[in-house]
Amino acid sequence: MPSKESEAVRRHWKAARLAQAPDRETGDHAWAGLTSEPPGVDYLAVAELPALWVVPKDAPPDRVLLCMHGGGFISGSRYSHRKLFGHLARAVGARALVFDYRLAPEHMHPAQVEDAVAAYQWLLEQGVEAVAFCGDSCGGGLAITTQLRARELGLPLPVATLAISPWVDMEVSGSSYDANRKRDAFFHRELVRGLVDTFLGPDGDRRDPLANPLYGKLAGFGPIYIQVGGHEVLLDDAHLLASHARSAGVDVRVDVFPEMQHTFQMAAGRAPEADDAIRRLAEWVRPHLLYTGRRDDGQV
Amino acid sequence: MPSKESEAVRRHWKAARLAQAPDRETGDHAWAGLTSEPPGVDYLAVAELPALWVVPKDAPPDRVLLCMHGGGFISGSRYSHRKLFGHLARAVGARALVFDYRLAPEHMHPAQVEDAVAAYQWLLEQGVEAVAFCGDSCGGGLAITTQLRARELGLPLPVATLAISPWVDMEVSGSSYDANRKRDAFFHRELVRGLVDTFLGPDGDRRDPLANPLYGKLAGFGPIYIQVGGHEVLLDDAHLLASHARSAGVDVRVDVFPEMQHTFQMAAGRAPEADDAIRRLAEWVRPHLLYTGRRDDGQV
Repeated sequence: MPSKESEAVRRHWKAARLAQAPDRETGDHAWAGLTSEPPGVDYLAVAELPALWVVPKDAPPDRVLLCMHGGGFISGSRYSHRKLFGHLARAVGARALVFDYRLAPEHMHPAQVEDAVAAYQWLLEQGVEAVAFCGDSCGGGLAITTQLRARELGLPLPVATLAISPWVDMEVSGSSYDANRKRDAFFHRELVRGLVDTFLGPDGDRRDPLANPLYGKLAGFGPIYIQVGGHEVLLDDAHLLASHARSAGVDVRVDVFPEMQHTFQMAAGRAPEADDAIRRLAEWVRPHLLYTGRRDDGQV
Repeated sequence: MPSKESEAVRRHWKAARLAQAPDRETGDHAWAGLTSEPPGVDYLAVAELPALWVVPKDAPPDRVLLCMHGGGFISGSRYSHRKLFGHLARAVGARALVFDYRLAPEHMHPAQVEDAVAAYQWLLEQGVEAVAFCGDSCGGGLAITTQLRARELGLPLPVATLAISPWVDMEVSGSSYDANRKRDAFFHRELVRGLVDTFLGPDGDRRDPLANPLYGKLAGFGPIYIQVGGHEVLLDDAHLLASHARSAGVDVRVDVFPEMQHTFQMAAGRAPEADDAIRRLAEWVRPHLLYTGRRDDGQV
């Protein structure tokens, strides 16, 4: 049974509406309200980008989580997610860079993946030693598509990827849309189809690999760790991504958290399930991000 | 007529309940939701205190606003108010230190003024050149009582004080409790009496100068700038404080903002009245805080 603290996540989604303008900031703030303030974390505004450095005390400057917020490509921001990624950064012992990308419907695909690649390029120019990608919901998909685009541009791939309740299947095909229809407190097939229309346009290609990574070539990608809630209609998105990546030879771990809702990790610092999830993410990514050889050692 | 953005403040208070445990953090978060994120401001966690440095880009390190949050001495935190004081710090061009003090009913007076003096002492030990105090609601009263206690301890007084909707009158005597009874969206005499009981205990001295600065000796204090909303039941608290300070020879300015609610400045970055108020606070305090002589010049 979910903890009473995780029940707050279900209540949040139960009360949620599609957070489009003009109440976007209000919706973002409500989502952020699930997360406690992580102690001992600094937030530094980046001058060159709409982004925040999330800096746990004593974190090395050159090993970074590049964090892609969720919100269905129509909402969310560096502010809605700074605390979630603050908890994660603190647990890992690494800095996080949390950036805003342009949102639909004003800016449709490929604006999001372009902005994510631009943020990654900027980060690489800062002289970092190792980068892991992390994203939740649509940000989980973006964490994969950004690698596809980065490779096209000849950029190095990140050492690892953390995908939290990733949304990847733009064909909205998962059987979990039916199986979890009554369990998911907010999402359902029609709503997600509406999000796809907003993101790609009614006639946009649902199989464009830079929008739907299930059609991307993932061979050569670093390891991927996926977390998903057992009550999500997007449960199959996690399994489809895992299966597609494994078939390309990628090392993939999937953890399904029983009875949890979409992005239940937003209750970090409050709900035991969220804290357990953050701890697992941190323990998994730490050897990849912190203990990989420096590039000038030739060990990466 | 209030702007539609300031109407959000009235709606907030209309929906508010006394934010006591266990929903304190939720209440704090709702209040914070009125304020936009100020751009270009860094937030640094202080190791030694439950406090945040609020650091606008290019602000000098040694001229500081010491900020005391509101919340009736039972709620509020460095997090509920970081954005409000972030807007102010940015407008002034100075750092702010926003700290948590212990809250009633677990910790009654004089815990609050003790913690505020301790934060001020810590700040002085950092080697700052000039400090201005700023507080809203009960924090506005605390900004005065802390100076009374600081003087008892032989500490230097701040160069100036900003008081936003200050709550100072523990005897709950103002005629504005009647005049604005129907205009104030949340506060009324009985509620404030309840807050006094919680802060001081049913038998606590309502005339203790360290709790009620209307009984303190303010001679020798630096200038005080008070802002208050015209629809507040606490309107008279502002006038009583101004009158008491002036009678002690203190330079006082009071601005009444017509039709505004308690701490309407929380809508900073959204409502024009709040932005106007922040701008006035900044313009007023800047010469005191930024252009006072260095102490080693002997000019202060």
